[in-house]
Amino acid sequence: MIVVGELINSSRKAIAQAIAQKDKAYIQTIARNQAEAGASFIDINGAVGGNELENMKWLVEIVQEVVDMPLCIDSPDPVALKVGLELCRKTPMINSISAEADRWEQILPMVQQFKTKVIALCMDEAGMPESVADRLRVAEKLVTGLTAAGVPEDDIYLDPLVKPLAVNHSFGVEILETTRALRQKYPNVHIISGLSNVSYGLPERKLLNRIFMIMSAAMGMDAFILDPLDQTIMSLLAGSRALAGQDEYCMDYIAGFRAGKIKA
Amino acid sequence: MIVVGELINSSRKAIAQAIAQKDKAYIQTIARNQAEAGASFIDINGAVGGNELENMKWLVEIVQEVVDMPLCIDSPDPVALKVGLELCRKTPMINSISAEADRWEQILPMVQQFKTKVIALCMDEAGMPESVADRLRVAEKLVTGLTAAGVPEDDIYLDPLVKPLAVNHSFGVEILETTRALRQKYPNVHIISGLSNVSYGLPERKLLNRIFMIMSAAMGMDAFILDPLDQTIMSLLAGSRALAGQDEYCMDYIAGFRAGKIKA
Repeated sequence: MIVVGELINSSRKAIAQAIAQKDKAYIQTIARNQAEAGASFIDINGAVGGNELENMKWLVEIVQEVVDMPLCIDSPDPVALKVGLELCRKTPMINSISAEADRWEQILPMVQQFKTKVIALCMDEAGMPESVADRLRVAEKLVTGLTAAGVPEDDIYLDPLVKPLAVNHSFGVEILETTRALRQKYPNVHIISGLSNVSYGLPERKLLNRIFMIMSAAMGMDAFILDPLDQTIMSLLAGSRALAGQDEYCMDYIAGFRAGKIKA
Repeated sequence: MIVVGELINSSRKAIAQAIAQKDKAYIQTIARNQAEAGASFIDINGAVGGNELENMKWLVEIVQEVVDMPLCIDSPDPVALKVGLELCRKTPMINSISAEADRWEQILPMVQQFKTKVIALCMDEAGMPESVADRLRVAEKLVTGLTAAGVPEDDIYLDPLVKPLAVNHSFGVEILETTRALRQKYPNVHIISGLSNVSYGLPERKLLNRIFMIMSAAMGMDAFILDPLDQTIMSLLAGSRALAGQDEYCMDYIAGFRAGKIKA
C-alpha cells in the first residue's frame, strides 16, 4: 500500500499559519513525522492564503532539507506545480491531472518533462462523474491518453472521485464497484483516493473514513492520501494489506507490531 | 446486517463457570445485554464441560425468561440440538449443518421439523475446504439440497469457513472471493461468518477481526457471529452497512449515533 501523507496542506489552519509565519521547524517536524510513520510521498500544497508560488518554493525546499523522499506536488495552478517540480530532488508525484481538456493540456507536458507519477482524476468536461460507467469511461480516456503519451502504467494513480455518502447512500458502493472494475481492467495501474470526502456531513467521520479505506483496499485500491500520524488508520492499513493477501507470511504486519506501530 | 450474539458459549471460561454454578443472573444479564446491543439471535452453546443436555435445557429456559428473541442453538451433538429446539418459543437458528453425510442426515430433519434457520458450513466428506472453487462446489450442494428439502433460501446461512491468515496469507482473499461469488450466485441466501478464526496466531487479533468483518461486508456477507457488547465492532458494522449502500439516507447510522451507540 502506498501512502501519500496529506498533512502539509495549506487548507489546514495550522499549516496556513506556519506558512504565513515562515515557521520552518513546524513544517519540517510534520514532514519528518510523516516519513517516519510510513508515508511513501509527502504532499505539498501551499495554495491557500495567497503567495502560492513563493509558498510552494519555500515548502519544497525546507521539506527536502529534512526528508529524503519523493514529494507529491499539489496545486490547482499549473505554474505553482512547475515551480515545485523544478525543485524536486526525487521523482515526484503530481496532484493532479484530469480528462478536462484545459487541465490535460497544461499538466501532461509536465508529467512528460519531469517523468513524474501522476494522480489522474476520473472527471472530464462533463464534470464530476455520475456513475460507475462514467468513471470507467473517463478512466479509459486517462489511461489510454497517458500511456500513449509515454507514461508507464506504474506511474498512473487513478482517483475514482468519491462523493459524500450523506448526499446519496449509493456513493460508497459506486466507488467500491469502480475500484473493483478498474483493478481487473488495469492490473498495473494504481488506484488512489483521499478518505474524508465520503463521510462529509455525517457524524463520527473517522469511523466511516476507516471503513471506506478498508473496503476500498479489499476491492483493489492500493494508494491512499491520508494522515500517516493517525496510528489507527496506519494499523488498519497494515492489517488490510495482510487480509488482502499482499503481506507474505504476514511478516510486515508482525514486524510492525513488534516495532510498536500496530495497535487495535 | 444480522448479528448472532456469541457470548453464551461454554467454551468461554466465565460461561462454563456460570453454567457449573447455575449462576442464572449472570447468564441472563449477558443475554439481555446482547439483545439490547443489537443482536438478532442469541447463540446458546452448553457443550463444554459435560452434562450438555441438561445445560442446553437450562440455558434455553433461563435466556427465554429475559429476552423475547430467537436463539441460535449451537451444538456438535444432534441430541442436544433437539433438546434446545423443542424449547424454543421463537423460530430458532441451528448452528450448524454441513454437507458431511452424517451431519446432513442428522440435522436436516430438524431443520424441516422446526422450520428453523440454519448455518450451513461449506465442508463435506473431503474435510475443510481448500480453495474458493471447493467452497463454491460445497455451497451449491448445500443450497440445492436444502431448497430441494423445502428450506427457503432466506433461512439458509452459508458459512464459507475462514481459516487462519497466519497459516497462509491467501486465506483472507479466499473468503472474500468466495463471499463475492456466493453473493452473485445466491442473492437471497445469507452469508455468515465468525470473526476470530482469521486472526488466530497473529498479534492484535481484534484489529484483524474488524478488518475481516468490514471487507467481508463489502463483498456481500450479511451475517456475523460476534460479540455485540464490543461497541467498536458494532459501530463498524453500522458504518459498513452505510458504506455498502444498505442504509437509506444513512438514517440508521445517524440514529445509532444519536442514541450514543456509534463511536469511532
